[in-house]
Amino acid sequence: MQPIRVAVLGAGTVGAEVANQLLSRAADLESRVGAPLVLAGVAVRDLDATRRPALPKELLTTDAESLVLGAHIVVELIGGVERARELVLLALESGADVVTGNKALLATHGPELFAAADRVGAQLNYEAAVGGAIPIIRPLRDSLAGDDVRRILGIVNGTTNFVLDRMDEHDDTLEEALADATRHGYAEADPSGDVSGTDAAHKAAILAGLAFHTRVPLASVPVEGIERITRDQIRASRETGHVVKLLAICERLTGPDGKEAVSARVHPALLPRRHPLASVRGANNAVYVEAESAGSLMFYGAGAGGPETASAVLGDLVSAARRHVIGGPGLAAPPSSGLPVIDAGLVSSRYQISLTVRDEPGVLARLASIVAEHDVSIETAQQTRAAAGGTATLVIGTHRAPEAALAAVVTALGGAPEVEAVAGVLRIEGE
Amino acid sequence: MQPIRVAVLGAGTVGAEVANQLLSRAADLESRVGAPLVLAGVAVRDLDATRRPALPKELLTTDAESLVLGAHIVVELIGGVERARELVLLALESGADVVTGNKALLATHGPELFAAADRVGAQLNYEAAVGGAIPIIRPLRDSLAGDDVRRILGIVNGTTNFVLDRMDEHDDTLEEALADATRHGYAEADPSGDVSGTDAAHKAAILAGLAFHTRVPLASVPVEGIERITRDQIRASRETGHVVKLLAICERLTGPDGKEAVSARVHPALLPRRHPLASVRGANNAVYVEAESAGSLMFYGAGAGGPETASAVLGDLVSAARRHVIGGPGLAAPPSSGLPVIDAGLVSSRYQISLTVRDEPGVLARLASIVAEHDVSIETAQQTRAAAGGTATLVIGTHRAPEAALAAVVTALGGAPEVEAVAGVLRIEGE
Repeated sequence: MQPIRVAVLGAGTVGAEVANQLLSRAADLESRVGAPLVLAGVAVRDLDATRRPALPKELLTTDAESLVLGAHIVVELIGGVERARELVLLALESGADVVTGNKALLATHGPELFAAADRVGAQLNYEAAVGGAIPIIRPLRDSLAGDDVRRILGIVNGTTNFVLDRMDEHDDTLEEALADATRHGYAEADPSGDVSGTDAAHKAAILAGLAFHTRVPLASVPVEGIERITRDQIRASRETGHVVKLLAICERLTGPDGKEAVSARVHPALLPRRHPLASVRGANNAVYVEAESAGSLMFYGAGAGGPETASAVLGDLVSAARRHVIGGPGLAAPPSSGLPVIDAGLVSSRYQISLTVRDEPGVLARLASIVAEHDVSIETAQQTRAAAGGTATLVIGTHRAPEAALAAVVTALGGAPEVEAVAGVLRIEGE
Repeated sequence: MQPIRVAVLGAGTVGAEVANQLLSRAADLESRVGAPLVLAGVAVRDLDATRRPALPKELLTTDAESLVLGAHIVVELIGGVERARELVLLALESGADVVTGNKALLATHGPELFAAADRVGAQLNYEAAVGGAIPIIRPLRDSLAGDDVRRILGIVNGTTNFVLDRMDEHDDTLEEALADATRHGYAEADPSGDVSGTDAAHKAAILAGLAFHTRVPLASVPVEGIERITRDQIRASRETGHVVKLLAICERLTGPDGKEAVSARVHPALLPRRHPLASVRGANNAVYVEAESAGSLMFYGAGAGGPETASAVLGDLVSAARRHVIGGPGLAAPPSSGLPVIDAGLVSSRYQISLTVRDEPGVLARLASIVAEHDVSIETAQQTRAAAGGTATLVIGTHRAPEAALAAVVTALGGAPEVEAVAGVLRIEGE
């Protein structure tokens, strides 16, 4: 068989790992593909090789365009959006197959890229974009292709799961846990994209688009990070038998017009400790899928890391190469279901609202009437007198109600004279 | 687009479910495939429709051959081996794609069928054969195609997991738990294929062949069922922080010649309670995969049931139909790695051996020397005096040693005058 020329774009942790495995495991990979995989080159921004000691200098190039145009399969691992989009489009338009782990690129330009791939019958594989080494893209795209996915709850960001797990296990503050994540290499120097939920939002948009066969623009995904999660909230969640997790939630639901719609969102949530996702510890990821016929499925594993992500990239690469060997076009993106994304305010949730209130008679009654005015009903209310200071803590658990109503309730409660502070608001999921 | 003609062979629980979904969800499935899926007919052994009230009579036929020859995609759900093999080969040789959930067929004739599919560029999809609705075939075949799977531990039989779980949770005897499984519909009238481990062995052979890209004949898979698991063993496992699970184990290991080889086997084993598989309750299935780069992954869900298995079949059907729409051959079976299956006696395990022994001085020393004579070393030994009768219970935990040596140890201990009975032998896994 003719050798298959592979271009690797980017020599970061994952890019270097993929390039090195292509070199060191060449015979093994050839036996799986049925043809040799040849590393045509690695595109880098600058040729300062000191940062990439393990890669042979003669394979490095700054001319990504030429590398792409001479390759059968292009592996995009440079990250970022604009430059990556240019190079992926160039690759697809020249007929090359593309493997990428770039979640930001897919979340913002996915439909454009899938259309470009379909036009020329090229493959666009992206198993590494969500859940690191955990196979989740292919199961959703192919294995569940004949089922109706109702809901996905995903722990898709390892850094934030590590942080929340430390806070739960070691009673750390957010700052302590984050420092610990950095020390263990689970958080980057600037972890803001993780902590703010942005990384999880990219993945939620990708998963929702795939599960519901529709376009879910990143701008339609409401995001709340873990910045405001306090040790007190974690302690309180323990007491009620819950655990706090940052969840990517994708749901198929009925819109106000009675028609089906979808929602994708990211926020911290209280999960019952017996929920399968509650036991996902450390920097691990897991995706919990509820489908009409298949019931509940869970996919679990390491969500990040160089070798783990490289495993997903190489799986995509071998799949693309096998298709290249036997001929025929890549599997096209499935036709769109056209399901609309529902307005975020219409999604129903249950809230747990923690308030610091004046410790005087009648407070609960007055606050309960504020909640009722917004057509939200209270399921539980628990008041605990503070040790001193004339204040008490009131934790209100609501029944399911639209987000917009719940947000209005929180605002109204915050403005009530009896309320000194809204100590925290958490949604409850998985019950 | 031209309609795609689908033949369903068999109208049992899964066959009827698939046929009904093809009828009731036609528009939905067409939108996913990009062409209509037309149910050409359902092949049954006899036309007595009383057992299949939900299927239109005019779709039923006893002429499976004609139905197969007129179909683009054949869904084989008749079970059994010989007749299924004939019809699947007929379908593939006529150029039709095949979807099957028949684990016995694949475990015994897999390589022949894959070769037949590759010859004509047809697809042979079998996600339903292992783990019901849990996507495990595609992740192993495609997502992990670039990684090296080291080991698979699978809970792949729902009936036996339900039984062992009941024994653990409710302190039931094996007979009580099995009766309960039948009552709940988790065990068939004749559950011998489940209880004996045969069903799990089929799945182990399929998983090992797929994970290690080699041929694993069913005859090379040693099988031990749960027939001899006692309530005492389950109680003892609780005390040591273990749980007993029936495991399908597939391993890549080093043979006595220093070369790589593979092993697939099925037996009950002690798992530490903190192992992810330990928390798989009831009739659920889960497959735990350890790969070189990807690390540990777990796939979890319902392992059986009509709608669940139909979900996997329909996923395979939609995937095959999409490929049919865009053209080009199906993805061929990966080239063989040629790894040999190791002799079962050479596989290393840790044993926990429970003995009823005479309660007299020096027993432990004499039995320990019997163990040592076989080059097996003892890790733990715990002796408990019986309430009466002059006997004691001695539980010996061994270090890792070859199966053959451990089997010889058990035989020798059973023959020692100090030993009244070998109460039980369990392997320890997952540590």
